[in-house]
Amino acid sequence: MKPLFFTPGPSQLYPTFNKHLQTALAENIASISHRGEAFHSIVSETIADLKRLLKIPKEYRLFFLASSLESMERIIENCVYRESFHFINGAFSRKFFQMALELGKKSRKNEVQAGEGNELLTTRISETSEVIVVTHNETSTGCMLPLAEICALRSMYPQQLIAVDIVSSAPYGKIDFSCLDLAFFSVQKGFGMPAGLSVLIVSPAALTKARWLGKKNIVTGSYHRFSRLDENMEKRETPETPNVLYLTVLGQIVKDMLKKGRSHLQSETEKKAKMMYAYFGAHKIYSPFIKEKKFRSTTTIVIDVKGKALELAEKLQQKQIYVGKGYGVFKNTHL
Amino acid sequence: MKPLFFTPGPSQLYPTFNKHLQTALAENIASISHRGEAFHSIVSETIADLKRLLKIPKEYRLFFLASSLESMERIIENCVYRESFHFINGAFSRKFFQMALELGKKSRKNEVQAGEGNELLTTRISETSEVIVVTHNETSTGCMLPLAEICALRSMYPQQLIAVDIVSSAPYGKIDFSCLDLAFFSVQKGFGMPAGLSVLIVSPAALTKARWLGKKNIVTGSYHRFSRLDENMEKRETPETPNVLYLTVLGQIVKDMLKKGRSHLQSETEKKAKMMYAYFGAHKIYSPFIKEKKFRSTTTIVIDVKGKALELAEKLQQKQIYVGKGYGVFKNTHL
Repeated sequence: MKPLFFTPGPSQLYPTFNKHLQTALAENIASISHRGEAFHSIVSETIADLKRLLKIPKEYRLFFLASSLESMERIIENCVYRESFHFINGAFSRKFFQMALELGKKSRKNEVQAGEGNELLTTRISETSEVIVVTHNETSTGCMLPLAEICALRSMYPQQLIAVDIVSSAPYGKIDFSCLDLAFFSVQKGFGMPAGLSVLIVSPAALTKARWLGKKNIVTGSYHRFSRLDENMEKRETPETPNVLYLTVLGQIVKDMLKKGRSHLQSETEKKAKMMYAYFGAHKIYSPFIKEKKFRSTTTIVIDVKGKALELAEKLQQKQIYVGKGYGVFKNTHL
Repeated sequence: MKPLFFTPGPSQLYPTFNKHLQTALAENIASISHRGEAFHSIVSETIADLKRLLKIPKEYRLFFLASSLESMERIIENCVYRESFHFINGAFSRKFFQMALELGKKSRKNEVQAGEGNELLTTRISETSEVIVVTHNETSTGCMLPLAEICALRSMYPQQLIAVDIVSSAPYGKIDFSCLDLAFFSVQKGFGMPAGLSVLIVSPAALTKARWLGKKNIVTGSYHRFSRLDENMEKRETPETPNVLYLTVLGQIVKDMLKKGRSHLQSETEKKAKMMYAYFGAHKIYSPFIKEKKFRSTTTIVIDVKGKALELAEKLQQKQIYVGKGYGVFKNTHL
């Protein structure tokens, strides 16, 4: 029996990953120049296909970074002069907020307890906030915020940039990117690849903001400032020698997903989530950690197993089934 | 016939790369948790072996970053309050200097023309410089600065931190790390791996400087500030989900290099370089770009082919031999 990984990421590899990796290696992709034509077409195609798969508007830019933490840092550096606003409901959304403080910004937050979701539309957000940060799916608690509410922020706050962490929801989430300015994910979650590559999606407005900060001599980073990334991307290149191998394989996996059809993928994910919630909703001892159905994640299902996480994980492992243990303080109580 | 890559990096893959990659994939390395014991031992062993291979002092830290450009940025952010000093002799050393300016520092430089080397010991370096930056081997021109002179900087400037770019010289260069505080390389050069992973070597003094800047509330970055990297490395972890697969394979390649012996590797490289310089030194038309022997690189041999770079590269490619074309303005004149 093949081992099964129900881990939030690094997750199980995509079924075609190995095939594409072998093909790329056979074609010496790892040794090609990242300033040459072969690389340019890999970048062009991957970006065009990602835009098709996720329905990203044509005029948005896609940048390749190393991790989602890097995406968070570059968003703060490039789009926040003084202040950002953060909705926090778990460890990762809190990390993003703390990062803004570390980068010298005066950021504010709306924080709810782990297991709860933020009320996006009734929260007061200060006018001085430049970027509103929302975590679509908080991996650490399994809380998913409603896309319709995220989208409604755009008309409520037309002056602000909207940044959404889609780390553990892409490519599943049916996001309307025209409602937002910045979004990012890493390939080791929904794309079933090894970790080491993140995709940052940037609207024209966000790019303009980054250029404006640059002109004001605000430090916006160096090799990965948005203006540098954009200049390079115009030539289908990256400032640094990038992870050409993973980029190539990502491109192929996206093609496979397009063939399979995204709605198929979405309905499959929804069906699986429904089954899991139905089972654990009726379970005598264990229960879904997120009580309010509106906030329940379809991609990251967190189950409160009443302190039996280690025991259960070990039993499942004997059957070659690997599950992720709870995050941080919930290490022993969640799966 | 197998294709041969004489490219400066991404270079030809190490002969055992494929074997180690397949083993790692068969062991599901790409799906393991980066907070678990299996990952901790990969990190411990890789660091211990790298320290043995390169003879890095025990008390130095090794951090895993995404690219050499990231290593440069983190050095400036974490070790420079106001001013750094840069020896420039080509495109990459110039990039490092410009990065310092972009990050808001008032940096100074000693710059020589492409094809020449800097006189490290007779250059006046201002007392107010906090970090002295030297590029051991400038990939863009094939200029290699003498290690003995780099090492002599330590006693001449005991108050300054010494940072050395060893991107295209490691693991070949016989560097005495106790002479320097910061050094970095990427795995796609001398380690024969795909791009996407860089190693940053940090002395206790450099770490102390980073902590001091942090206490003064100078922005030193966020998830990759030295203090955060160090806290995580104490647990054999990284702040972000790292490139576990490449890290694992790097560990195995370093083991292979240790078995082969580093001096064997070094004498092989020297022998090959001698042959190349002897051949092109006597060639009627073509000649080594670096005239002064003291500055000639043993790892990156740049040949002035009098405008025939494209033509020659095409001819060689027909024989499945791939060479790197010149950098930037030398695209058509150098190989």
